[in-house]
Amino acid sequence: MTNAFHPPVRTLMGPGPSDVSPRVLAALARPTIGHLDPEFIRMMDEIKGMLQYAFRTDSELTMPVSAPGSAGMEACFVNLVEPGDKVIVCQNGVFGGRMKENVERFGGVAIMVEDEWGKPVDPEKVKAAFEEHSDVKILAFVHAETSTGVMSDAKALCQIAQDNDALTIVDTVTSLGGSELDVAGWGIDAVYSGTQKCLSCPPGISPISFSKKAVAVVEQRQSKTPSWFLDQKLVMGYWGGGAKRAYHHTAPVNSLYAFHEALLMLEEEGLENAWARHQYHHNALRAGLEAMGIGFLVEEAYRLPQLNSVMIPDGVDEAEVRSRLLQDYNLEIGAGLGALAGKVWRIGLMGAACNKKNVLLCLSALENTLASMGADINTGKAIQAAEQVYAA
Amino acid sequence: MTNAFHPPVRTLMGPGPSDVSPRVLAALARPTIGHLDPEFIRMMDEIKGMLQYAFRTDSELTMPVSAPGSAGMEACFVNLVEPGDKVIVCQNGVFGGRMKENVERFGGVAIMVEDEWGKPVDPEKVKAAFEEHSDVKILAFVHAETSTGVMSDAKALCQIAQDNDALTIVDTVTSLGGSELDVAGWGIDAVYSGTQKCLSCPPGISPISFSKKAVAVVEQRQSKTPSWFLDQKLVMGYWGGGAKRAYHHTAPVNSLYAFHEALLMLEEEGLENAWARHQYHHNALRAGLEAMGIGFLVEEAYRLPQLNSVMIPDGVDEAEVRSRLLQDYNLEIGAGLGALAGKVWRIGLMGAACNKKNVLLCLSALENTLASMGADINTGKAIQAAEQVYAA
Repeated sequence: MTNAFHPPVRTLMGPGPSDVSPRVLAALARPTIGHLDPEFIRMMDEIKGMLQYAFRTDSELTMPVSAPGSAGMEACFVNLVEPGDKVIVCQNGVFGGRMKENVERFGGVAIMVEDEWGKPVDPEKVKAAFEEHSDVKILAFVHAETSTGVMSDAKALCQIAQDNDALTIVDTVTSLGGSELDVAGWGIDAVYSGTQKCLSCPPGISPISFSKKAVAVVEQRQSKTPSWFLDQKLVMGYWGGGAKRAYHHTAPVNSLYAFHEALLMLEEEGLENAWARHQYHHNALRAGLEAMGIGFLVEEAYRLPQLNSVMIPDGVDEAEVRSRLLQDYNLEIGAGLGALAGKVWRIGLMGAACNKKNVLLCLSALENTLASMGADINTGKAIQAAEQVYAA
Repeated sequence: MTNAFHPPVRTLMGPGPSDVSPRVLAALARPTIGHLDPEFIRMMDEIKGMLQYAFRTDSELTMPVSAPGSAGMEACFVNLVEPGDKVIVCQNGVFGGRMKENVERFGGVAIMVEDEWGKPVDPEKVKAAFEEHSDVKILAFVHAETSTGVMSDAKALCQIAQDNDALTIVDTVTSLGGSELDVAGWGIDAVYSGTQKCLSCPPGISPISFSKKAVAVVEQRQSKTPSWFLDQKLVMGYWGGGAKRAYHHTAPVNSLYAFHEALLMLEEEGLENAWARHQYHHNALRAGLEAMGIGFLVEEAYRLPQLNSVMIPDGVDEAEVRSRLLQDYNLEIGAGLGALAGKVWRIGLMGAACNKKNVLLCLSALENTLASMGADINTGKAIQAAEQVYAA
């Protein structure tokens, strides 16, 4: 007979999921009701309103996809890309590569604009790609690259797309709620995100929003969307508002309770305050890491406060460090992905996990673990450096 | 400012979600850990083992898709259907129609075998379709039609497919855990289900299992699967076992805690006992409804115990009845779908909701509500009739 599963209580400072607030966990466990219950439908409307606030848009097609961020990405591409469509895809980490897969699997032509992992997308290269290729339908890029910790200039990239009459698909999985994002102001046409990063909800649903222009493109598709589950024309019969909701699929009721509570916490804090909090604790963490002698992968101007890619000290068995942090401190930090595997750790400061307690725990645990393994770091200075930032 | 959402406490006797056990809700709210945490991976292995038990298979590709049942359906079709493939789709309710959509959106050719809503799939018609069409790759049908409450003979249908060298895709959304199902014994090649029916888990994930033959077909695909999120070749790098898991997408961590607990409860009860319990309470509900003068849509031999499609008494405003049940009794029953809208109610007795308390509540509430609206029913006999079944 199997035993009940009681997870250890971890501190989640990897690339997500992040620590989930007890308020959100409590919401998750509220009694399940029907997905067509009038009370549930009322809650869906509240989610939509709060999500519009978080994304900064008043678009009607703003809703959570009933599946993780990868499905949110797919919802954008599968609805907007038709066979033969040209899509400029910017790749400067793992997730640009996944966008390319999406374009190609739906019959589109991906025009790749590549930048080094750890560098932002270069707007000049994007301009050049538009000059080289005519009839580009979509520009797709990642706002905050979770695999590298780099921020690209979404506003400037969207402007280039608009100058070339192209739509934009923007990955904001790691930026939503953590860094400035202005979906309507920047003119983003299709945006997707995740719940398990700076919104500090358990993973499993993916908020998306489509502009009016994007909705019109979906409505004028020549071919049937090659997905029933993610066909936004069908999904909007359920999420589209009004008292009469058509059954499409069974919504993940309890996950949406949690998402409602997480959005409520963001509303209470205020979007700008949440952005400022991420920057504030990042500054303290950075001061501590630098005092230890640990550097960053990303140039300061492009660093994500919520995802810190830091260089692994020479000669250290990085997997052993992560394993000890987990065993000795119940602390999770992330490994490098793809080209950065073995070169960086990814230290997250996301949502509810972005607080002073976690910054101090991470600095202490990392310093102690590295020192015990004989790594070449400065000891005894990190906490003080962080505290100086907090005292300033 | 939005308020926190506190759902009413309902009794869920519609077509799903069903009542969720407090044990499962408590599991849902346990602290989130990382999707690559060694403890999480250990739990994933336990889920796999318990799901193999529930499906009755030892197939390695047995796992929960990170999205609701519709995505489980899509995972089966998108991986197994290639452009031009012929698929015999049996339609005797809503979900056969959705299967047709799946086949066509992935470039396949759907050969429809239609039966009246409320009747089981006719094996003779399926045989005839195989005789009429050569090179049929797949036979797809719904085991337990949630829209009508009818059970089809999955064993016989699978045998016909095997006699014609075709694969089978079987929808067991409403049968898993509620009625006899023997995936390996019957030779089902791809099966999908839901968590919010007889497993009494909140909605949001979809268990699937592929046979060795189906896995081989997926591995030998000529074209790329037109979905990245649901590409089983990629997903199995994460769910495929072994200590080294490749990141594909972020698993819905807390939903899987709940699923683990629900599977554990099924293991404790025993699969055959769970099936018998569904039949037992169905017998009592049926006796009560018949004593009231309310009949069933489906012929007795094909009735699903867990989903009772019952005829709405003449002249009754059916939406008003459901609305009063919800308001006065916090009781949810389901409306008819598609061709059966306005003709039947769907009364679920699924999983944790399948118990004596619910049977008695449903009979009392329905009788009282219908009588107060002047419906032509027999009063004062239903509870007694149900109690006689329980006393027998």
